Amino acid sequence: MDEFLNYISITGAFAFAISGALTAMNNKFDPFGVLIIAFATAVGGGTMRDILIEGKPVFWLYEPGYLYFIIAGTIFAIAFRAKLNHMLKPLFFFDTIGLALYTVIGVQVGLEYNLNYINCIILGTLTGAFGGVIRDILVNEVPVIFKKEIYATVSIVGGALYLVLDKLILHHPMIQFIPMVFIIVLRLLIVHYKISLPTLYKKE
Amino acid sequence: MDEFLNYISITGAFAFAISGALTAMNNKFDPFGVLIIAFATAVGGGTMRDILIEGKPVFWLYEPGYLYFIIAGTIFAIAFRAKLNHMLKPLFFFDTIGLALYTVIGVQVGLEYNLNYINCIILGTLTGAFGGVIRDILVNEVPVIFKKEIYATVSIVGGALYLVLDKLILHHPMIQFIPMVFIIVLRLLIVHYKISLPTLYKKE
Amino acid sequence: MDEFLNYISITGAFAFAISGALTAMNNKFDPFGVLIIAFATAVGGGTMRDILIEGKPVFWLYEPGYLYFIIAGTIFAIAFRAKLNHMLKPLFFFDTIGLALYTVIGVQVGLEYNLNYINCIILGTLTGAFGGVIRDILVNEVPVIFKKEIYATVSIVGGALYLVLDKLILHHPMIQFIPMVFIIVLRLLIVHYKISLPTLYKKE
Repeated sequence: MDEFLNYISITGAFAFAISGALTAMNNKFDPFGVLIIAFATAVGGGTMRDILIEGKPVFWLYEPGYLYFIIAGTIFAIAFRAKLNHMLKPLFFFDTIGLALYTVIGVQVGLEYNLNYINCIILGTLTGAFGGVIRDILVNEVPVIFKKEIYATVSIVGGALYLVLDKLILHHPMIQFIPMVFIIVLRLLIVHYKISLPTLYKKE
Repeated sequence: MDEFLNYISITGAFAFAISGALTAMNNKFDPFGVLIIAFATAVGGGTMRDILIEGKPVFWLYEPGYLYFIIAGTIFAIAFRAKLNHMLKPLFFFDTIGLALYTVIGVQVGLEYNLNYINCIILGTLTGAFGGVIRDILVNEVPVIFKKEIYATVSIVGGALYLVLDKLILHHPMIQFIPMVFIIVLRLLIVHYKISLPTLYKKE
Repeated sequence: MDEFLNYISITGAFAFAISGALTAMNNKFDPFGVLIIAFATAVGGGTMRDILIEGKPVFWLYEPGYLYFIIAGTIFAIAFRAKLNHMLKPLFFFDTIGLALYTVIGVQVGLEYNLNYINCIILGTLTGAFGGVIRDILVNEVPVIFKKEIYATVSIVGGALYLVLDKLILHHPMIQFIPMVFIIVLRLLIVHYKISLPTLYKKE
């Protein structure tokens, strides 16, 4: 993976660590519990991706930088917790950043390992969303991904957009920014306008 | 794996996708949530099996057919949901089909990778039952496997039967049908006659 | 891994199997459910460790001894359940033994695969604590690790102690006993004196 994508990935780990730490603190975990949830949220999606791909080492075991950024994100969340709770939905904000960055990284890894397009999108969504699923399972909640805010859908659409752009504008530097911004803006719009997928169920 | 076993495995994925989709709809998930639960139920057991075996690629990453059958199973469950809910326990039915087919596939993979017999049976049970465990964890229920209907026991006994038959009647074509039918019939009988394992606990 | 460490690891599996079986019986699981929870608790941490390390086979698939000790632990827990419940916190006791033994094994595996020190400690804690996390997720409780008794902290400190000793007293036979005893004693003291980490939250 090139240098630039590495920065994106580490920034995603930082954002997800904050989202994990905030969730853990909302559940009154002790400091090490907060760190562990932050760690699991930040590396969960990419770890699952790397375990699935034959011959791909697990990313954080061989790049010590991740651990430092996860610790930094945790400390940031603890230090600014009072402030963060005055902001509008900080957990939502950092979770969305993580989702956007990790989705693009996941699709990119799929392309590097010559997987077909559908599997690239699955890997993108898994990388983007699975850390949050682990976070919610560990605090014993139904994963937010399944209930609200068209979470996975945004990731799938953003991943598909990246594949299309990658075909059209071959390896243009920084092409990754477009799907990342797209995912963030789309999720913000969806939540702001309270859009939801058509329901399968009759109103009660 | 030969052609025939491949068909069994894909049929198992189809059945488990239906069982996952039904569970997700019972929990009022949105359409993409339904698809994700269907996918996790259908590939969960086999994925865990393939991750455990050194050098075995994860089956669905390199066989795009699975994804189509999982999507088909999900659409089938959504389309016929009203009808399915009039049938007797459709979730139970498709779950049992999936358990029977995947147990046999799991034992077969263990044999191909020269694992000892006990581990072959463990892999069979894991392949057959783990998708349902993931499904239940994701919707935040105690996995049905642990509470009811002698679920894992049926898989273990069926897997052992397959090993015995495989020793006695070497590689006879379609020998796999016997343990599959055995598992389905045994589970139907157990549930119909409300048989349960002897309890470890005093009646309250 | 040398012979001696293998004995430690199998003893850890035995202790964790008992802790898993006791948890399952507290939740009224049927006999096979008890065995499955015992198995998942005993192999969960080491399996996750082996999956993460590229090229490391999953330990219990190639060492049939583990399975026998897990079955023995389960039978032991079932047979002496009435007696064990008269003892002071048997679940706590066997869980602590398992944590101590598996932490040291996990750090040792990290050293053998030339991981950096921080990752060795993470692997030690994962090996020691993840089986209990899986156990608690499967019975649908918030993992005890996140709520009480400075569980992971003890494992992290014990793992770090092992690394320091391993540097100072190179490969002295039985050096592993010191961090194991340290972890057990530290956890006993913490629980006995009701010590907890400084809280991040105001008293309510």
